[in-house]
Order: sequence, then C-alpha cells, then structure tokens
Amino acid sequence: MLKPALYLIPVGLGGGNPGEILPGHNSKIIQEIDEFIVENARSARRFLKSIGYSKNFDDVTFHILDKHTPEGSIPEFISSIKLGKPVGLLSEAGVPCVADPGNIPVILCQEKGFKVVPLVGPSSIILALMASGFNGQNFSFHGYLPVEKGDLKRKIKEIESLAYKQNQTQIFIETPFRNNKMLSALISTCSAQTKLCIATNLTLNDESILTKSIHEWKTVKVDLNKKPSVFLIYKN
Amino acid sequence: MLKPALYLIPVGLGGGNPGEILPGHNSKIIQEIDEFIVENARSARRFLKSIGYSKNFDDVTFHILDKHTPEGSIPEFISSIKLGKPVGLLSEAGVPCVADPGNIPVILCQEKGFKVVPLVGPSSIILALMASGFNGQNFSFHGYLPVEKGDLKRKIKEIESLAYKQNQTQIFIETPFRNNKMLSALISTCSAQTKLCIATNLTLNDESILTKSIHEWKTVKVDLNKKPSVFLIYKN
Repeated sequence: MLKPALYLIPVGLGGGNPGEILPGHNSKIIQEIDEFIVENARSARRFLKSIGYSKNFDDVTFHILDKHTPEGSIPEFISSIKLGKPVGLLSEAGVPCVADPGNIPVILCQEKGFKVVPLVGPSSIILALMASGFNGQNFSFHGYLPVEKGDLKRKIKEIESLAYKQNQTQIFIETPFRNNKMLSALISTCSAQTKLCIATNLTLNDESILTKSIHEWKTVKVDLNKKPSVFLIYKN
Repeated sequence: MLKPALYLIPVGLGGGNPGEILPGHNSKIIQEIDEFIVENARSARRFLKSIGYSKNFDDVTFHILDKHTPEGSIPEFISSIKLGKPVGLLSEAGVPCVADPGNIPVILCQEKGFKVVPLVGPSSIILALMASGFNGQNFSFHGYLPVEKGDLKRKIKEIESLAYKQNQTQIFIETPFRNNKMLSALISTCSAQTKLCIATNLTLNDESILTKSIHEWKTVKVDLNKKPSVFLIYKN
C-alpha cells in the first residue's frame, strides 16, 4: 500500500511517449493513486493513459488547480491525505512546481505535516544546464524576463553582469512565440564574447542544444518560433 | 544505431537500485555505448551492472576524469565522436555537470560542434525544490557555502536577504559530515520567521523533506550527520 502523501508527478516535455523518459518506478506509484490535482483534466487523462494507468476514470477524482481556482478551495484537494490516502499532483509539462506556479498544495502539506514525495522526471532547466557546458555549481533561474523592450534590455544587462561578477550561469525562458524576439534582444544587448546557450525541443527527436558566443550567434540562422526553449547566459 | 554524441548519463542518489528511478530509455541508450568518461571506474562498472548493461568490460573503455586528470588529455576522451561513435559521460551521483565540476568534455563538444545529449535523471536540487513549497519560478543554487565561521555567517545573511529582496529561493549544499554545523549556523544567523527546508536522503527509503520556520527548527531534534542533504531558504 502506498504511504499517504502528496506525490509530485512529472510528465513529459511534449513528446509522443512520455513513458520513455520517466522512471518505471513512477508508473507503479501512479497506478495506486485515484485522486489527482491537475491543471487540465483532459491532458491529465491523456498522460495517465499513455503510461498504462488502468483505473476506470469514472472512479478517479480530478481536482482542477489553475489560475481560476479560489485559494480557499485548495485545502480540500489534499484532505484525503489525512484519511490515509495518497494524492497526486500532476504537472502540465516537466516536473511540478518548477517554472510553474502550482505549489500551494505543497505549502499546505508542509504546514500540516503531510509527507510530500517528489518523483524523478525531466526538468528542462536541468537538462539545458547539463548540456550547456556552463557552470553547474552556481546558477540562477529567473523564469520569464520582462516583455517591454526597455525593461527587457535592462534585465538582460543585469543578469549578464551577474554571470561575470558572480561566476553564475543565468537561466531563463520565454513564451515560445516570442523566442525569436528574445534572441534578437540578446544579440543586440549582450557583449560579443558573452556565451549564450539555446536549448530547444528538449527530449524530442529534433532536440537542439547549442552554445556559442553572442558574436557567433549573429551569423547563425535559427528559427525558434513556437519551439519551447531554455536560454542560458554565461561569461566567456 | 546510436547517433555520435556525448551522452550525459545520470546515476542514482545512493540507493540500492538506481534502475528504479531512471527512465528505461536511458538503459537502451547506455547499452549501445562502449566508451565512457567516469570519475571512478569501479563505481561506474557497478552502476552499469545494476541497470543490466551486458557488454564485456574488457571491451569497454573508461576514461578517468577527476581532479588529477591533466586538462590537456581531455580532448582525447571525446575524439571518438568525430569517428561516428557515441561516448557516455557518467556522473558519480545524480545528473552530470550539475553541482559537479565535470563539464570540460561538454565545453569541448560544444566548441567542436559535437552533439551533446542530456538524459533524464534525479537532480537532488530539483527534487528538493519541488517538495519545499518554495518559489520554483525564481531560484538560485550556490553549491557549497564558505566553511570558515565568519565567512559562512556573512554568506548566509547575504543569501537570506536575496530571498526577501528578489523573492528568490536560495539553495545550497554542505559536505554531509558538516550538516549539523550548517543547521546550527542557519538557526543562529537567520531571522526567526525565515523559512528553511531540509531535504535529506532523497529517493532513499528514509527520504525526509521538511519545511519549517527557523523559529520552529529551533525546537526540532534532527541529526543530519553524514546524510546527504539539500538546504533551501525562502522568505516568510
């Protein structure tokens, strides 16, 4: 029997077969859970089917946690743990609660003394960092940078200077349809010798992870439009 | 046939059966590799056996990459990729190149235009962050903090202030035999309301991930001695 706890369940990064990049151990655990906190019930069911989940969905509870969920209703989502039942928190992509705002159920569990069990899965941030060649002993993840042009330039300058002063890899993401704009902004803002790694379509068949100086990126033709990407900056 | 590339291969975090927490996909890839860059050939062989690797070790090359390896010999380790062969870079614990200095082969591959393929595996930093309840949209990993008492206190104050000013989760590690000292230093240095998460023995049977205020930690008896732990600080 599975211990009562909140299980944090990673999913794939958008490929056809998430089971391929998830440990078999995860499927065994998920199989024993029939109550899930999810952002979208449809994609949650699709994921569960893809890893061979065999319970009848009529007997499964999906609590929807998205930006419309009133905060006051979230304690109810984890109340079964007190009764000795496991509850799963499913991410929409990658690992839950990283580059993702869905951490309120985790906060509540920690406050109430309920066990929280994170399962291993793909984090685009860590995969990108591993393959960048950049400093993995000191790094910062900033989420999304500002959209407004002036603010964006200021923020890029600020984190570029952290890369040099703190010897720290700087990691951030962008809404995929704005990726090309982000690349232009980086090229026009950073020093020519600063290193930029762009990690695109991680774990998919056309995965690409390239590290080049800003000077070199100026001469490369890439189209990042609508392709999920992680950007990393490091000093020369 | 596996594409010529440097494959970054995660291992377990110290448990008996790393295969449990690694994707089946990884084993399939590793099975096709017969040249590995490793820190320690003995533990590499032990890992490979544990996931069912079936090649004869007499036919397998292990390049040793540790602090005694002359930097000039590292290009040789990846030269087979140019000849169309895959090479694996094995970590000693968790994922390669994160909280780990072994990234020189990756830098060389990126410079030479060789493909680098990161495989999914357990990152203690990400697992701890997921289960802490802390901000996963903005976080910093600092590696090891200074050992000397005064320097350590100054560094703790500095990163605690980043947690508040930047709304950023602060993550760091300590040599396991100094963990209890680190906890004392945190308790005596941070504000009473600051939140501290300690994630210990991740993925093992006695995994423990607890988030409490510094005030609460003062009254809890824990022995972290020699237990691999990740420390996380966040504002109240």
